[in-house]
Amino acid sequence: MAGYGHPYVIHAANLAQVYEQAAQAQQQQAEPVRIAHEHAQYQQQQQPLQQQQQIRAASPPHHLQAQDALAQAAQLELGQNPNALAIRRPFDPTAHDLEANFRLTRFADLKGRGCKVPQEVLLKLLEGLQDDQGQEEHSTHFMHVQIAKVGIGMDASITPLRHSGLSLVQTTDFFYPLVEDPYMQGKIACANVLSDLYAMGVTECDNMLMLLAVSTKMTEKERDVVIPLIMRGFKDCALEAGTTVTGGQTVMNPWCTIGGVATTICQPNEFIIPDSAVVGDVLVLTKPLGTQVALNAHQWLDQPERWNRIKLVVSEEDVRKAYQRSMDSMARLNRTASRLMHKYNAHAATDVTGFGLLGHAQALARSQKAEVGFVIHNLPVIAKMAAVGKACGNMFQLQQGNSAETSGGLLICLPREQAAAYCKDIQKVEGYQAWIIGIVEKGNKTARIIDKPRVIEVPAKEKDGELW
Amino acid sequence: MAGYGHPYVIHAANLAQVYEQAAQAQQQQAEPVRIAHEHAQYQQQQQPLQQQQQIRAASPPHHLQAQDALAQAAQLELGQNPNALAIRRPFDPTAHDLEANFRLTRFADLKGRGCKVPQEVLLKLLEGLQDDQGQEEHSTHFMHVQIAKVGIGMDASITPLRHSGLSLVQTTDFFYPLVEDPYMQGKIACANVLSDLYAMGVTECDNMLMLLAVSTKMTEKERDVVIPLIMRGFKDCALEAGTTVTGGQTVMNPWCTIGGVATTICQPNEFIIPDSAVVGDVLVLTKPLGTQVALNAHQWLDQPERWNRIKLVVSEEDVRKAYQRSMDSMARLNRTASRLMHKYNAHAATDVTGFGLLGHAQALARSQKAEVGFVIHNLPVIAKMAAVGKACGNMFQLQQGNSAETSGGLLICLPREQAAAYCKDIQKVEGYQAWIIGIVEKGNKTARIIDKPRVIEVPAKEKDGELW
Repeated sequence: MAGYGHPYVIHAANLAQVYEQAAQAQQQQAEPVRIAHEHAQYQQQQQPLQQQQQIRAASPPHHLQAQDALAQAAQLELGQNPNALAIRRPFDPTAHDLEANFRLTRFADLKGRGCKVPQEVLLKLLEGLQDDQGQEEHSTHFMHVQIAKVGIGMDASITPLRHSGLSLVQTTDFFYPLVEDPYMQGKIACANVLSDLYAMGVTECDNMLMLLAVSTKMTEKERDVVIPLIMRGFKDCALEAGTTVTGGQTVMNPWCTIGGVATTICQPNEFIIPDSAVVGDVLVLTKPLGTQVALNAHQWLDQPERWNRIKLVVSEEDVRKAYQRSMDSMARLNRTASRLMHKYNAHAATDVTGFGLLGHAQALARSQKAEVGFVIHNLPVIAKMAAVGKACGNMFQLQQGNSAETSGGLLICLPREQAAAYCKDIQKVEGYQAWIIGIVEKGNKTARIIDKPRVIEVPAKEKDGELW
Repeated sequence: MAGYGHPYVIHAANLAQVYEQAAQAQQQQAEPVRIAHEHAQYQQQQQPLQQQQQIRAASPPHHLQAQDALAQAAQLELGQNPNALAIRRPFDPTAHDLEANFRLTRFADLKGRGCKVPQEVLLKLLEGLQDDQGQEEHSTHFMHVQIAKVGIGMDASITPLRHSGLSLVQTTDFFYPLVEDPYMQGKIACANVLSDLYAMGVTECDNMLMLLAVSTKMTEKERDVVIPLIMRGFKDCALEAGTTVTGGQTVMNPWCTIGGVATTICQPNEFIIPDSAVVGDVLVLTKPLGTQVALNAHQWLDQPERWNRIKLVVSEEDVRKAYQRSMDSMARLNRTASRLMHKYNAHAATDVTGFGLLGHAQALARSQKAEVGFVIHNLPVIAKMAAVGKACGNMFQLQQGNSAETSGGLLICLPREQAAAYCKDIQKVEGYQAWIIGIVEKGNKTARIIDKPRVIEVPAKEKDGELW
């Protein structure tokens, strides 16, 4: 399958040396990040594929020492940093003997996290389970969506184990296709599942299961091309995360479905309970917003009526680029962001997904122990997508923080004096920006976005042949 | 929700005393099992619901000592033995303000494990993943469906952990409604997921996640009635199993879907690697076959054309009883069967599900270390279902061992001298029969059913007001 439909995705290479250099550079704050990345890219290009695969096969299994695993994982991530690569070629169905008008997203009527049962409906459905709450009290601390005294409905759970001092951290998620490229769809699904672990500061995943439904509307040909690409994408992303996919379930279903389960068994010091924000902290966001706007705008390229509504504020090229950026962003692991949470003493974090920035900020605020409130001043948004959002009558409510994201960034409460260093560090290690977007002040456990937030275009300036 | 739609399902009670009595009776082989069960039933009836709930709430969490957990679990199971109860009243949609013709099974076009992608298709889809096999070699021992060198596609996985000597055992499964009673559907889905753990001799489940899709074709009313019942059934079954459901994912989908993830972290002595059958062993089966035939025959009650094909060999009453027996059987945990595998030194086991008795026997035979073959002589079948199978042109291939089962029994290789005691013990503890159905002889790792196997009707004789 090497090179099968995803020529620009280069597998993990032995970049220990580069990583060390980057780490030195970080300390000295001297060597520009771009050089380290170009170096990485150069090394990868020089390394024959076969050798890369050997290195991959020889990489230690996931039950090695945590320290080694961390170092190894850092290498893997740096090695696969898509930022170091040229822009990914769009998925071409005809290159796989499929019809030119094949669209993966047509195999479901709901997209991405739009398929989730609305929060208020879910709460209603869960009401009947409230009467045997006792056994689950310990879970209520760890919910992303706080549902009083019911464990079901949250994205991730922490369960104390029978074995001394260890806890089981688990999360599951599945949804419908939101991009046309099956390989990228697989990666995004995997990154999205893992993101819930990372939000809790858990950087090691011990095992993954893959949940897959083949659409009953696919032809055999479509099935035989698309499903292995999705599986491969999922598996490659798991590999980037230093984990493996050891099982799963595959069924037939009207809508194509992809998701998984991520499981970690860890010591208490491996996770960060997201309830310790204090007045004076600042809020950091590690990925730009606007994926939902970009994915929709991209589909509108085929729908003249829709396209006419936004073509005054954005070019076709802008939309294609925003779409590529969204894919890259959604497929990117929040693992480095999670690792650095430990280094910079993060007080609480969540990942931004289906309920939008504000929805998740509010859920996080609600679970704080201290009487705090979150105020958001800045909105980093994928370039041009704020304008698109406005042009189509604000249907996404992007600037109100309500636009759904898939596999979005981490929203982290950091001590004020650490936040700038955190952002600088993530840029050094990964080559991606992070932003201070707000503050933690005295309050009643709510979150809000100020009236006219500053929109930060990401990237601020187009660079030829580069994504960010 | 107590008593909501499932008046005959009584929750766990403190039956330590009864359990002790049953254990004594077992040693003395004197006291009839029925008495112990009637005693259990009596105690449950005497115990006010509130008190039962207090006991349940006060039951130790699952991170207690394994020994305590086992004892507790035994009580729970005995307490909830449906065999001790009257026949469950059929689900009445109008009692929940639904239309009288509401049928849960209409919310999917494929039923139960019939929704699984066929094995040969799955193998083809997985081909592309074969090239990074190295990391997963350790898994190949533990597959139910042996797929050389690929971890994906099996029902359960064992992963060594970073933490000293512990292993992660995980399984996932989800499918579409196959019975009309939402509460029972939830229980069956849960029992089915757990069955893969039990097949490996793992009797403790540390955590479950619930995977649920609400059908987009349900009215709000249907959704608000049916989904909480399914959830409740799933959760109650998890409780019977001594575990908890701490999370999950709920989406909208054309077809209603229900399933879950079961996870255990255990010591090596807690699981039994299913590869050690030797010549001279015998094969034991712990649940009767014929669930697929019964579920279909029950649907044919509404379809005169179909019904006419079988009405000469079976009465409507027979079909309704077979349907009730199937539900009871599918919702029953294989946990006692699993626990006794340790006591009687089982050499290998699997659970009988979508590929039918023969399919799973063949998969189990293939994974043996020794040069053995399995020969099956006896087929325990839910009463009248063998005749129904024959009458409809053998479309199910029940007597050929190809009829799909859902949440079927364990198929276990036991030393010949232990097998009778195993069957006697399971009857003592649970009140359910188990059967010696075949032998392990010298062979080439295949399984077969003899030309004219003996069909054992289960139960052999109808007893008024009792299911078995």
